[in-house]
Amino acid sequence: MVSPMEHTTTDEDRDGQSPSEDVAAQPDLDAELAKVEDRWRRAVADLDNLRKRYVRELERERAAERSRVAAAWLPVVDNLERAIAHTGDRSDAIVEGVRSILDEGLQVLERLGYPRDEESGVPFDPQRHEVVGLVAHADEAPGTVVEVRRPGYGRGADQLRPASVVVSRPKE
Amino acid sequence: MVSPMEHTTTDEDRDGQSPSEDVAAQPDLDAELAKVEDRWRRAVADLDNLRKRYVRELERERAAERSRVAAAWLPVVDNLERAIAHTGDRSDAIVEGVRSILDEGLQVLERLGYPRDEESGVPFDPQRHEVVGLVAHADEAPGTVVEVRRPGYGRGADQLRPASVVVSRPKE
Repeated sequence: MVSPMEHTTTDEDRDGQSPSEDVAAQPDLDAELAKVEDRWRRAVADLDNLRKRYVRELERERAAERSRVAAAWLPVVDNLERAIAHTGDRSDAIVEGVRSILDEGLQVLERLGYPRDEESGVPFDPQRHEVVGLVAHADEAPGTVVEVRRPGYGRGADQLRPASVVVSRPKE
Repeated sequence: MVSPMEHTTTDEDRDGQSPSEDVAAQPDLDAELAKVEDRWRRAVADLDNLRKRYVRELERERAAERSRVAAAWLPVVDNLERAIAHTGDRSDAIVEGVRSILDEGLQVLERLGYPRDEESGVPFDPQRHEVVGLVAHADEAPGTVVEVRRPGYGRGADQLRPASVVVSRPKE
């Protein structure tokens, strides 16, 4: 090694003030300082980005867990509905009880952010509808939901499942 | 400011080799470098701690959301149970249907990590039991769960609610 010295100059020095005999070696320490400052700034920026990313990720993970757990209950709700459908127009204490339990389940879904979607007479929308049948229909415009076979729950990004629908066939 | 110069020496310089005329000002840049290095190291350590904390937080938030959403369904499960209890020993299609829907709900809770707790004949445990009654009991040791009025769900940190129980009274 020719010289172990690592002196550095500041801008003031370079602007003409008393350059010392080790001026050639001084840029090294300046460069080192700039390098470490750069590393520090990048670490601080990373920290900031990571915090922001975590806030978004936490909300996304919460929503995913909410949707996973809520979806696990859909078979229970569907079966309550099926049990009621099977009773026809019979009405006694247990049928009334099951009806009110179904209502309660639908309210739970709604409060969690997954309102029921069983609207018919609306235009087919691939975001909320899954076509399970096409029928010729005299009164409805083509591409209209004419029957909801199974209701959907939730909308947009918060959808547990789309509604299964029958749609009026395009005119020939 | 007497001198705008901020020259700094390295260890090699201080070890006796050709100190320059600005040796008095050099510790400033050394100190500055040490300060920035320290900041950088702290930012890197913060980054590391943030990552570790986030992993723990993520799991905690997921568990909290799971428990919040699952707990919202407990009234539905309780009401299914009540509806069945009201039918006495009647058995027809809808009663059988409701029984199997209740079973389905209990399986959902179990799969989510909240098994049903309706064990009687066990010693009272404040972690899993909430006392709703005390009775004199000839056959059971004092402090034994002699009746479960309302089942609990989950255990330990993953408890949705404790079981409501009647406990045998301490002997007088």
